[in-house]
Amino acid sequence: MVTPSTITPGSVGTVVTRYLDLPAPVPLDCGRDLSPVRVAYETYGTLSPARDNVILVCHALSGDAHAAGFAAEAAGASTRDGFGAEDRDGAAGAGLGWWDGMIGPGKAFDTDRFFVVSTNLLGGCRGTTGPSSTDPATGRPYGSDFPVLTVADLVRTQRAFLDELGIERLAAVAGGSLGGMQALEWAVSHPDQVDSIVVIASTHALHPQGMAWNAIARESILRDPAWAGGDYYGTGRTPDAGMGVARMVGHVTYLSGPALHDKFGRRLQFADDIRYTISEPEFEVESYLRHQADSFVRRFDANTYLTMSRALTYFDLARQYGDGSLARALEPVTARTLLVTFTSDWLYPPVASEEIDAALRVLGKPTELHVIDAPYGHDCFLLEEERQTPIVRRFLAGG
Amino acid sequence: MVTPSTITPGSVGTVVTRYLDLPAPVPLDCGRDLSPVRVAYETYGTLSPARDNVILVCHALSGDAHAAGFAAEAAGASTRDGFGAEDRDGAAGAGLGWWDGMIGPGKAFDTDRFFVVSTNLLGGCRGTTGPSSTDPATGRPYGSDFPVLTVADLVRTQRAFLDELGIERLAAVAGGSLGGMQALEWAVSHPDQVDSIVVIASTHALHPQGMAWNAIARESILRDPAWAGGDYYGTGRTPDAGMGVARMVGHVTYLSGPALHDKFGRRLQFADDIRYTISEPEFEVESYLRHQADSFVRRFDANTYLTMSRALTYFDLARQYGDGSLARALEPVTARTLLVTFTSDWLYPPVASEEIDAALRVLGKPTELHVIDAPYGHDCFLLEEERQTPIVRRFLAGG
Repeated sequence: MVTPSTITPGSVGTVVTRYLDLPAPVPLDCGRDLSPVRVAYETYGTLSPARDNVILVCHALSGDAHAAGFAAEAAGASTRDGFGAEDRDGAAGAGLGWWDGMIGPGKAFDTDRFFVVSTNLLGGCRGTTGPSSTDPATGRPYGSDFPVLTVADLVRTQRAFLDELGIERLAAVAGGSLGGMQALEWAVSHPDQVDSIVVIASTHALHPQGMAWNAIARESILRDPAWAGGDYYGTGRTPDAGMGVARMVGHVTYLSGPALHDKFGRRLQFADDIRYTISEPEFEVESYLRHQADSFVRRFDANTYLTMSRALTYFDLARQYGDGSLARALEPVTARTLLVTFTSDWLYPPVASEEIDAALRVLGKPTELHVIDAPYGHDCFLLEEERQTPIVRRFLAGG
Repeated sequence: MVTPSTITPGSVGTVVTRYLDLPAPVPLDCGRDLSPVRVAYETYGTLSPARDNVILVCHALSGDAHAAGFAAEAAGASTRDGFGAEDRDGAAGAGLGWWDGMIGPGKAFDTDRFFVVSTNLLGGCRGTTGPSSTDPATGRPYGSDFPVLTVADLVRTQRAFLDELGIERLAAVAGGSLGGMQALEWAVSHPDQVDSIVVIASTHALHPQGMAWNAIARESILRDPAWAGGDYYGTGRTPDAGMGVARMVGHVTYLSGPALHDKFGRRLQFADDIRYTISEPEFEVESYLRHQADSFVRRFDANTYLTMSRALTYFDLARQYGDGSLARALEPVTARTLLVTFTSDWLYPPVASEEIDAALRVLGKPTELHVIDAPYGHDCFLLEEERQTPIVRRFLAGG
């Protein structure tokens, strides 16, 4: 087999992010209608004549539309560090999509069979309308006037976007973390349009400790004077200090304690002794966190971070749809459900997926739960591709 | 029994913090000699004629010399929130010492039998010389010129202080968290002067995830422009924003996930629905964290926080004394050792205490380990007084 230089085996090859302007305003949970809304997206594979092979993949807090393949415009940038998996960038190469290990010919989301669609979320900073976009009412970036979003708003935007592509039904909606929340939201709010959902390392409602970490990350941005109440665009300043701390908090919650131990231990940064400094890193783990912070602030917008963190904290199927009952919320679901979770994920722990699985079972709905014993924490959903692949392929083949 | 109004049963009563100026400079690990050094301290109970009933209690990151009884000068302030145990303040009353449940007549550290001494640590902000103290060389607060300290420096200062009190031997050194590190340091560095150590919820070396949380807390202070490189004294500004985030991070690490769930769940702050705000708390847990931050910055100095966080991150018995081997580091120990740890403490998890216990056993040294099954996380060492008391009393009676 001859492989073109830009295509590795199993790769979708070089891809271009495209943009689509929605024809109508998007109604939001907060009561506002947002317009105009542009959606950045990528597609991989071929849409079947019957339009029945579409998989929508949904990104997590810091992701974007570039889920697979090599970005045509990549100049050394990669979005693969979206969940702390940055150590894989070197091997993966520049410009590789954040879920490239899962999307492509013969992969979990097999582009030889499925037409995979990936969009940058509403509120994003990578091409889809978000806080840094121009508010037509003022001619300036929205900033603090951008609406506060819910996961339902993100899904509503995806629905409007797919309408424009002429896609009514989805063979599957798939995602990890906040992406898994979107899959659940789809199954509950659009039950007649979703054949199956793949919910990885996610939850029907973030637990209080996770809510606390998200609150702390947001506080560190809100308290940065350069945030300027959300209206920092055009001031020449960005809240990098606060965003950096937010990223560090997020990063540590995405990794397990043992993973940090294996990776860094208590190794000193320089020589074999401490240097008596508080302001400079002394240990490798300290230097690593600073590096994570510095690289993240260069590629991500603080208001988008706040928006996504708020949306995933709000998400609560039982409150939204079940009057406090998860079972009642899941009653409308007709999609087959695949739940994948990881033993070492303490931010989105297995118990949340077990609760969803149990509730669906009681309702007599088709559900499948896989708890993968893996050590890397929440990051597993981006790192444990090999073990997820057969599970996802088998599930999708059963449709 | 008649109980004076200021004394509750088991209480040491009203106490006054006293101050002592050391007669000589304190030599520090970084190579500098610090002088003058003032030590704030309190004592409870009566020193025996043989001076053989002294227990030194050592405080944790945010504590002070006021460990027991009611502060004479208390005006509504309490230091009991030192480790997130603030919810007990109401019941405990204003001005109560941070370990009052453990120190007093008939309590774990029984002041009917022992003479309990508590000092504010070197580098502190509650009476002992620290970064906010006046540097005699400049006439201004040390600020950024205050030396970077180690746990050994804290212990060396305690040693010099006890010399002034005419106390050579210690029946016990006791503490939780950073306080437990000091007890371990005493046993290793002054083996001929310590009969026993009580090490609660502590470790011989903080694990990498704990190092990461401490690094993040420090970063949030360092990145606050009001920190001004450490020289904020006299500027009219203090790094409250960064300190607040640091406190929130610390607070969540002191509590267990289940404890946060039991205490707050996902309860909304107002009414029965979300209000679509990012900058204001929506959930009770978010409001609680903000309250914790606000109350902490009013009573604690940021540079002291940095100093203590750095010292406890440095602490590593194997590196300091064992050329990488914990067993070798513990070889000089002659003190009987009591280790107490809590199942839900994920910041100072039981495994660290188990490692110390195992190493001491191999060396044939007297050691006793108690793993208490309790749900409150690291905070247990301040909250689980009832279950610690019989363990500590029995251990101290065995001396």
